[in-house]
Amino acid sequence: MGFLSILSFAHKLVEERLHPGDTAVDATAGNGNDTLFLARLVGGTGTVHAFDVQPRALEQTALRLGRELPEGQQRVHLHLRSHGEMERVLPEEARGRVAAVMFNLGYLPGDDHATVTLPESTLEALQASAKLLRRGGIITAVLYTGHPGGREEADAVEKWAAGLSQREFQVLQYRFVNQVHSPPYLIAVEKRV
Amino acid sequence: MGFLSILSFAHKLVEERLHPGDTAVDATAGNGNDTLFLARLVGGTGTVHAFDVQPRALEQTALRLGRELPEGQQRVHLHLRSHGEMERVLPEEARGRVAAVMFNLGYLPGDDHATVTLPESTLEALQASAKLLRRGGIITAVLYTGHPGGREEADAVEKWAAGLSQREFQVLQYRFVNQVHSPPYLIAVEKRV
Repeated sequence: MGFLSILSFAHKLVEERLHPGDTAVDATAGNGNDTLFLARLVGGTGTVHAFDVQPRALEQTALRLGRELPEGQQRVHLHLRSHGEMERVLPEEARGRVAAVMFNLGYLPGDDHATVTLPESTLEALQASAKLLRRGGIITAVLYTGHPGGREEADAVEKWAAGLSQREFQVLQYRFVNQVHSPPYLIAVEKRV
Repeated sequence: MGFLSILSFAHKLVEERLHPGDTAVDATAGNGNDTLFLARLVGGTGTVHAFDVQPRALEQTALRLGRELPEGQQRVHLHLRSHGEMERVLPEEARGRVAAVMFNLGYLPGDDHATVTLPESTLEALQASAKLLRRGGIITAVLYTGHPGGREEADAVEKWAAGLSQREFQVLQYRFVNQVHSPPYLIAVEKRV
């Protein structure tokens, strides 16, 4: 049957923790995959905030939402801003109430690979996410190491995650270890109840 | 809700792949926990082989089976042998037909910690397991690094697992990364269908 892929396992962890009416964040909107996934889970009474610095990413995301979730899209807020600004962009009342934040690091799928996420703003966004998270909420970060700078970014995320207080957070790594071409892997952070 | 613990996740992976009538191996019988778990899954028509070099471990395992699985215990074979001898001990017809092999490395729970599993025989047992496994079958290895020699054994297992052919096997690592006292972690190996 095969083990769940990195992306499927990340989705499963979020699915188990995100409910209708919740607030969620897609920190890297990209082609809108995770934004759509989150919007479906929080439903018409929930809210999704999606971030991307690339106009094309938000256009694609808006298109997909319009096509696949016509009634739900009004609860999705698309921010043409770095996820590093997450803490300033999200409304005050979201603090401590966010149920899930998803990161898919690296470059925009299908893009020219010129625009990649960078360690500094990624870490800012992760720190903000940890503050925004409610108890029992989850951060998933899919890390890619195959592109220039990818290994450094992944190391920075791992170091940040390993340093989180064991009393406050549980940090899980889910990773395939016998693959030849540096495959992506998952770091998931749950704020303890 | 918390992430599934290392042991629960190992059990879940085995449960999804082991069916009534199958053959399974508990490579480290210890207190009989996994032997009982496997015996329940394979049922009255399946077979479990359990290994341990410590007579007390097999006594405890036999006691638990007699108490908690009175009708099923006749299909459980207890071997007072090193799991390194697995290939010689299992009947010829088991080759390529074993659905699950579970390892819980380190020392016998509750014991004086004098007897621990050792890299050489552990690797022999893992190599034998990979041969015995049927397509779609799984090996789970829970690795402990807190005792003397534990880190070396875990490294040896990781190196072996990372070297398995990507075409033939999928190798997953499931690990908590922000814990202070070197916690156990899981390596799971599935033979591709």
